[in-house]
Amino acid sequence: MYQYEYLFDFTKNVFMKMGCSEHHSTIIAEVFLAAELRGHSSHGMIRIKDYYELWKSKRINPDPHIKIVHESPSTAVVDGDNSVGMVAARRSMEIAIQKAKNAGTGWVATRNSNHFGIAGYYAMMALEHDMIGICLTNANPLVAPTFSISRMMGTNPIAVAIPALKQPPFVADFATTPVARGKLAVAEKKGEKVPFGFVQDKDGHPSDDPTILKSGGSMLTLGGDRVHGSHKGFCLSSIVDIFSAVFSGANFGPFVPPSVAYLPVLDKKVGEGTGHFFGAMRIDAFQPANEFKAKMDEWIETFRSAKPADGQERVLIPGDTEREAEEKNMREGIKLVPAIKDDLVLIARELDIGFK
Amino acid sequence: MYQYEYLFDFTKNVFMKMGCSEHHSTIIAEVFLAAELRGHSSHGMIRIKDYYELWKSKRINPDPHIKIVHESPSTAVVDGDNSVGMVAARRSMEIAIQKAKNAGTGWVATRNSNHFGIAGYYAMMALEHDMIGICLTNANPLVAPTFSISRMMGTNPIAVAIPALKQPPFVADFATTPVARGKLAVAEKKGEKVPFGFVQDKDGHPSDDPTILKSGGSMLTLGGDRVHGSHKGFCLSSIVDIFSAVFSGANFGPFVPPSVAYLPVLDKKVGEGTGHFFGAMRIDAFQPANEFKAKMDEWIETFRSAKPADGQERVLIPGDTEREAEEKNMREGIKLVPAIKDDLVLIARELDIGFK
Repeated sequence: MYQYEYLFDFTKNVFMKMGCSEHHSTIIAEVFLAAELRGHSSHGMIRIKDYYELWKSKRINPDPHIKIVHESPSTAVVDGDNSVGMVAARRSMEIAIQKAKNAGTGWVATRNSNHFGIAGYYAMMALEHDMIGICLTNANPLVAPTFSISRMMGTNPIAVAIPALKQPPFVADFATTPVARGKLAVAEKKGEKVPFGFVQDKDGHPSDDPTILKSGGSMLTLGGDRVHGSHKGFCLSSIVDIFSAVFSGANFGPFVPPSVAYLPVLDKKVGEGTGHFFGAMRIDAFQPANEFKAKMDEWIETFRSAKPADGQERVLIPGDTEREAEEKNMREGIKLVPAIKDDLVLIARELDIGFK
Repeated sequence: MYQYEYLFDFTKNVFMKMGCSEHHSTIIAEVFLAAELRGHSSHGMIRIKDYYELWKSKRINPDPHIKIVHESPSTAVVDGDNSVGMVAARRSMEIAIQKAKNAGTGWVATRNSNHFGIAGYYAMMALEHDMIGICLTNANPLVAPTFSISRMMGTNPIAVAIPALKQPPFVADFATTPVARGKLAVAEKKGEKVPFGFVQDKDGHPSDDPTILKSGGSMLTLGGDRVHGSHKGFCLSSIVDIFSAVFSGANFGPFVPPSVAYLPVLDKKVGEGTGHFFGAMRIDAFQPANEFKAKMDEWIETFRSAKPADGQERVLIPGDTEREAEEKNMREGIKLVPAIKDDLVLIARELDIGFK
């Protein structure tokens, strides 16, 4: 078990050794650790190696100049200057919040960025300002549109954070696929099959093989198959991709650059880097903030008191699971599997810092 | 087969006879007929009877004064004065578009409204202004949150319309459930079962019975079950409900008033009427409009050329099906099933207008 502070300081040091400023390294460490705390370890310490390898291959810029390239009273387009994704993303969300202060809402599309960790982190930045936060991003193509076998989209997540008064905030943060790719990796390691509806084989036939991506298979959109509404999942993934990449001038769909160094740079570019989209909406642009937040309490209490189905203990409000994980992991420490620990020891040695 | 103009004039006359102004009746007829043309007849002529019965029970206001009750440069809250939903919705989207002209984006939450037909109609209003249009609405509670058996939410649709240059626009318009309720009614009439993943029984067990709602069952969210991501569908339905009703001060979740007169007015109110949410985003608040639209052409062409799966002919872009239906139905006419025709004949007789 590792204490939060230990992993935070280590992560910060890794990125400082890579040439990131202390300010940027602090942001990056905060987002990595937010993923670990909130139980999304697929976006946590396991990914440090990917960033490190991208940096070694000079595919990421540790000293970026992030700038607004286009704007209106409530919008901006940000160029991330090929920064570590967290740095461009945090700055972009700050701009969205600033725009919302003046115009009621703020909307920022960001290009020339990289993988930014968990989307929920940026959406939640709005909460302390009595704003609703929204964050979308596109990602490496693994997912096929309905009726297709071509890998055209990432697991393109949507995060929305909404403040309440006495209740904890509503925080939705979900991929627009039935499961994250990490679940396939876990099933593969255990030698298990996955339920039908997650993946298909290279010809588009249903499959329960978690390794199918290695033989030309693809992931399916939320809904799974057409009968169960996969075309709605495709709509969602598409909207995330268009808002993140077409709005900003980033690479869309199949052209999103790999977030790992062991995959080659793509031949074709249709924009700059990876794209994100951020929104901040001032509550009091719609309702007096305390009235709205009291109403959100009522919304949350109403849904929390929905009657559980047979065999279920309770109904979860979006954000409950992550908040409970956060409290537990902060208290009891964060567990790293041996393979990840080994990676970090190796990186620490190469960068001449400590990790044990 | 009926010609568009015949049904349009008839619908307009029905609402004028109910005391709606000619302007309002024209809007209402346009939205009803848009549903028929686009192949969503579940939201078309079949629903005229519901509005007529609500009007007869004095549960809907034919002469509303719709007004802005709160605003910021990019936002407004609109009170629909218990109007026919189409009237409040169209006015709200006009306000969103006007706000976007000034502030880059416009966002309107509407309360005290009623069922408004197809969400896609309002999202598409943005297209001719070189804007992206967004429309959400809550609806009568039929859907249970993940792990629950309580009917807490409607099929809460999301519509997003995005313009392109040479390609037709991208128009997504989908319920946040695997299927619309109408599909259950169709299966029931045919005496068929439905696939598992659409509904559950009163205790939360999987069911393939399309009549299960009559015995305490409920519809499931997009994803179907927890394993296949129903909690993501629940996130989506919740976001639609909160944006439509908590932002605006309408009734949320289980308190949304019935859109049919044969169900009684609910005892408890937590706001005013049904709620909607509208967004308009000026393209050139992000990118020069023609650059963006040319890039959307490239996006659409890329996805349209995705390789079809075994047994599939082509990959559909959101909006393709509806646009093709619209062309066909405008050319060949609109078919009404005998039961709907009988309803309309009856209404026509009572209102002393013609229908044959």
